[in-house]
Amino acid sequence: MSTDSRSDLLAAIAGELPADLLTREPDQLAIYGRDWTRAYTPAPLAVARPRTTAEVARVIALCRRHGQAVVPSGGRTGLAGGAVAQSGELVLSLDRMSHIGPIDTVGRTVRVEAGAVTERVHGECAAHGLFWPIDLASKGSSHIGGNLATNAGGVKVIRYGHARHWVLGLEVVLASGEVLELGGALEKDNTGVDLRQLFIGSEGTLGVITAATLKLTRPPDRVRVALFGLDSIDAGLALFADARGAGLPLTAYELFTESCMARVRAHRRIAPPLDGPSPCYVLVEAEAPAGALDPLEAWTESALGARGVEGGVLAQSAAQAQSLWRLREGISESLGATGLPHKNDVALPIAVLGDFCRELEAVFAARYPGWEICLFGHVGDGNIHINVMKPDRMERDEFFRRTGEADHAVFELVQRFGGSISAEHGVGLVKKAYLGYTRGPAEMALMRTIKRALDPDNILNPGKIFDL
Amino acid sequence: MSTDSRSDLLAAIAGELPADLLTREPDQLAIYGRDWTRAYTPAPLAVARPRTTAEVARVIALCRRHGQAVVPSGGRTGLAGGAVAQSGELVLSLDRMSHIGPIDTVGRTVRVEAGAVTERVHGECAAHGLFWPIDLASKGSSHIGGNLATNAGGVKVIRYGHARHWVLGLEVVLASGEVLELGGALEKDNTGVDLRQLFIGSEGTLGVITAATLKLTRPPDRVRVALFGLDSIDAGLALFADARGAGLPLTAYELFTESCMARVRAHRRIAPPLDGPSPCYVLVEAEAPAGALDPLEAWTESALGARGVEGGVLAQSAAQAQSLWRLREGISESLGATGLPHKNDVALPIAVLGDFCRELEAVFAARYPGWEICLFGHVGDGNIHINVMKPDRMERDEFFRRTGEADHAVFELVQRFGGSISAEHGVGLVKKAYLGYTRGPAEMALMRTIKRALDPDNILNPGKIFDL
Repeated sequence: MSTDSRSDLLAAIAGELPADLLTREPDQLAIYGRDWTRAYTPAPLAVARPRTTAEVARVIALCRRHGQAVVPSGGRTGLAGGAVAQSGELVLSLDRMSHIGPIDTVGRTVRVEAGAVTERVHGECAAHGLFWPIDLASKGSSHIGGNLATNAGGVKVIRYGHARHWVLGLEVVLASGEVLELGGALEKDNTGVDLRQLFIGSEGTLGVITAATLKLTRPPDRVRVALFGLDSIDAGLALFADARGAGLPLTAYELFTESCMARVRAHRRIAPPLDGPSPCYVLVEAEAPAGALDPLEAWTESALGARGVEGGVLAQSAAQAQSLWRLREGISESLGATGLPHKNDVALPIAVLGDFCRELEAVFAARYPGWEICLFGHVGDGNIHINVMKPDRMERDEFFRRTGEADHAVFELVQRFGGSISAEHGVGLVKKAYLGYTRGPAEMALMRTIKRALDPDNILNPGKIFDL
Repeated sequence: MSTDSRSDLLAAIAGELPADLLTREPDQLAIYGRDWTRAYTPAPLAVARPRTTAEVARVIALCRRHGQAVVPSGGRTGLAGGAVAQSGELVLSLDRMSHIGPIDTVGRTVRVEAGAVTERVHGECAAHGLFWPIDLASKGSSHIGGNLATNAGGVKVIRYGHARHWVLGLEVVLASGEVLELGGALEKDNTGVDLRQLFIGSEGTLGVITAATLKLTRPPDRVRVALFGLDSIDAGLALFADARGAGLPLTAYELFTESCMARVRAHRRIAPPLDGPSPCYVLVEAEAPAGALDPLEAWTESALGARGVEGGVLAQSAAQAQSLWRLREGISESLGATGLPHKNDVALPIAVLGDFCRELEAVFAARYPGWEICLFGHVGDGNIHINVMKPDRMERDEFFRRTGEADHAVFELVQRFGGSISAEHGVGLVKKAYLGYTRGPAEMALMRTIKRALDPDNILNPGKIFDL
């Protein structure tokens, strides 16, 4: 876009909309131009912070008229660069639109604006004995709009599924500036293609989510948590099969390696939770209905005798359960605080996870001889986070060059086993070059057809997920 | 399409595909040309019954080349005319593609072809202690492909949601004849817009579903069932609010009026389940964890003392639970067997159900003075089935003319309360003229844009849901 056209746009926005809607302060551009990936240099044209859906619609209509690219922006906690503005885009932040409506305790719904912080929504719901079961490490900063635009998952997917399943209504501003209200507060509406699903998970490339009616549920009466030390990842997967076979009502089944445990313990100065270290750990959480036999307690006894299980502990209090969870939830932060990780977030069919991990070892041995690899993930969902740590004596650039190359080998393996190159982090900029490992040519063509149909001028988050 | 072109197409199919793929036998055309709506005269060109996805793809590619309309066809249990072929379409039946793969008990998935009958899938899963939680009255005939193409719901939506939530992978043949494999056996895959969602619930207008990887779960250990007689629909809704507030782990909350009960009892010769008749009934089903206090038992005692509750019974055995369910599940069949119903299937936000029902009474009083109205539905999902029974002395044509007119008044009310004109039956032909009461102009435009993008020659189920 020419400088003239840019000035015209900024003048038009300044003329039609409140004076404080737009900012071009350099520190604000730097903050709003990036997300948690930190790998890109922010360079937005300006930041727009509307207060109403009508203002969002007007900003987008003006941007379209001037051919201005727009990056919709939430809590900017993404790990794929989906909210990065590095090429003169206008950042459209929803952070001033954070209203949370009253909780409907009978219909179990709540209407929220896109900029509502996830944890605030959790808090409002909890006051009524309800919850929105999208629970992720970034909930203190992430916005509901971002959770929906990325179809967030988190630690409770095994029990509750993704964000997609927990939204009834969606208000969306299209690239034309038109406002769609989809679904309302209805559990059921079978009247043709479900347009909400186009916008959920499409990272702001097809429309801007401005509000949503969330579906809520009651949390379980009580959950119990256990941690087991195992001699191998294979043993952790076998134990999962055993838990499934026993009908354990799992709300989480999380696996992590000793390399993760060591870094969390060192970073957070936590005493060892078991008698000795093990190559691998699993954290198991299961529902324990009030007044009933505790299914996890019964199962733990048998699990302690299972092949490959080196030790285990069943939390005896909420505080102890929390401290076990801290070992798992602290991993991502501790890896970043104690070193430089190269992250991948892959998903596999659960049935082939063991074979995949065995072949992955061979890739690691060839590509990363002697390097530290930290594996963790929501194994009950087939989701593994692969973190390759930068060796101390290696330069940063050399590290990213080599891990970038190795990613092709990892993703070839993912492809061969029918997996996904991005289980929950999305694609954004970070995974764009690798998308073809998960999506075939016919799928890519169809995704482009839909993008062109909904955003013919390519102004909504252009260059994210794929290039046109 | 011209007669020549039609002959060319039939010759091309006969030349390239197995001899028994196509039939034009009049009795077969009559059977395959219609669904359970029975309101349309079947007039398909021919019926194609392929055995493989490659054959489906080839038939569709040939149809596209010859501009031939195709009606994808499953168990034909639909109530909206979605599978009707009344204008020389080629019916593409998936009924020869009914393979059910092995159950993956750890990943909890099963791969099935589209023509697998729902109840057969349930049976295979049950043998492994698992189930696919889409449970509907037509399951003995309906196909998985149809369940997905219509995003089926059923009696367990309150606990498990719709078919959309219980499918991981989808194989789809596009209008171009291309085959897409979407999602595989992955719980998680956040790599751009979820293309599966385009095909689920779009009634075969955007692609033909040929196979799916279903997500399975474990059924609850045990459920309990109670039936209550109430003095009004309002009391039934108040009791629902009470059940929700008490945290009852509901798996069904079904309401029906005495007019339904009377017809079921007369048709099936069932003794009254309660001491006396009540204007309204609710059937409540809740999970009862093994070894725990039974939450429904405790709640039933308090419910019996609630305002408007005239009586109630808690089933003391599986057989008694089944006989209570029979009263509810028999309604649709008994209404059809004992009279001629005009059916509507609407959804409302749960919070406004009471107000809606009160205003609905006024519509009934004005439009149907003294007629018999049978209301039932999945009230816990905001879903009401409205059945207006033909008065004995009225002609059939007159009846349908008057109910068709009255539908506008009903749907205006639905629209005013933010509801849907089709909660679970879909749109097909039956609800096409009324779609605008639920979907606004911008939504209709977007649905048309998507239809044109995916099916530019309009060969896939043309004229269903909306006209282009």
